[in-house]
Amino acid sequence: MSPHPSICLITGNAGKAREFSELLGFDIEHQKLDLTEVQALDVSDVAGAKAQEAFNILNRPVMVDDTGFSVHAWNGLPGAFIAWFLKTVDTGGLLKMAASLEDRGVDVTTAIGYADSSGVRVFTGTVTGTLPIEERGTEGFGYDPIFVPEGYDKTFAEMTADEKNAISMRRRAVDEMKRDLRLDSHH
Amino acid sequence: MSPHPSICLITGNAGKAREFSELLGFDIEHQKLDLTEVQALDVSDVAGAKAQEAFNILNRPVMVDDTGFSVHAWNGLPGAFIAWFLKTVDTGGLLKMAASLEDRGVDVTTAIGYADSSGVRVFTGTVTGTLPIEERGTEGFGYDPIFVPEGYDKTFAEMTADEKNAISMRRRAVDEMKRDLRLDSHH
Repeated sequence: MSPHPSICLITGNAGKAREFSELLGFDIEHQKLDLTEVQALDVSDVAGAKAQEAFNILNRPVMVDDTGFSVHAWNGLPGAFIAWFLKTVDTGGLLKMAASLEDRGVDVTTAIGYADSSGVRVFTGTVTGTLPIEERGTEGFGYDPIFVPEGYDKTFAEMTADEKNAISMRRRAVDEMKRDLRLDSHH
Repeated sequence: MSPHPSICLITGNAGKAREFSELLGFDIEHQKLDLTEVQALDVSDVAGAKAQEAFNILNRPVMVDDTGFSVHAWNGLPGAFIAWFLKTVDTGGLLKMAASLEDRGVDVTTAIGYADSSGVRVFTGTVTGTLPIEERGTEGFGYDPIFVPEGYDKTFAEMTADEKNAISMRRRAVDEMKRDLRLDSHH
């Protein structure tokens, strides 16, 4: 094992910390913090602000992640507000809002905010897809029944965990982070 | 003239400060501050958080206001996020999203956050109305062309400023504030 920066992931979810450790190739710690959710459409803005706030509190390298759901015809809405759409109208209501759309394209983007004493960086991974006409599938959670990734004819909610993880926005964001920060699990 | 608390309205808009002074019945100062927009559906939460933050900065009685646009069939969405809907899909896009709705009811709510050394209070004024089928009118701004207040057959954008001000959410919120804080312009 080689030395690596001691990064703390801000989450109360141990499963998410395990997934990030696997994607990064080394173990990271995790800790729950109540961070401000700034109002922004772009998850990069949300993740960047949260990383800065977490660094200010913990004074050590930190990372946070956020995922947004951006409908092309709606100029990026709901974006970082997807949780509010799910909470109010849910996936069925979102599809009704989208009923008349000709362009049914969607970008799902994970943004990782990373902050250390040299400042904040944000890394993103995006998977493009489409809104189906109806909700399909029972796996997963959140927007999974209304997202069909490009190159597939199934929604995320119709895929096994392995199929879905192979198309991971999170993995793409982590890959960008590893390249930029020159993180390496093996020397 | 009687003494009254020296309240500072947080806004860079002198016209808004004049309107509040008129509604309150006494002059208030105003000052621009960059306050955090917390992520919340309910404008009361947004206005309360901003008032607390402004008080922490200025250490004097402060008030802030925020207005939300809540579609009944969408369980309150867009609410405090109305500015993001206008920025991305605008009024025409919002009506398209609402095209299939049977219940076209909307609440427009102004929340005033007030903070002093004893804490934060939030006062609200709501006007109920409906979404028209098409945008109508050219007066005003924001959601005005897509809001028909109850008891009228015109949108806010088809009314004169006087007609619209007679149905003021802001006035209703100020009246609640005056009652609760026992603010009085005449003794």
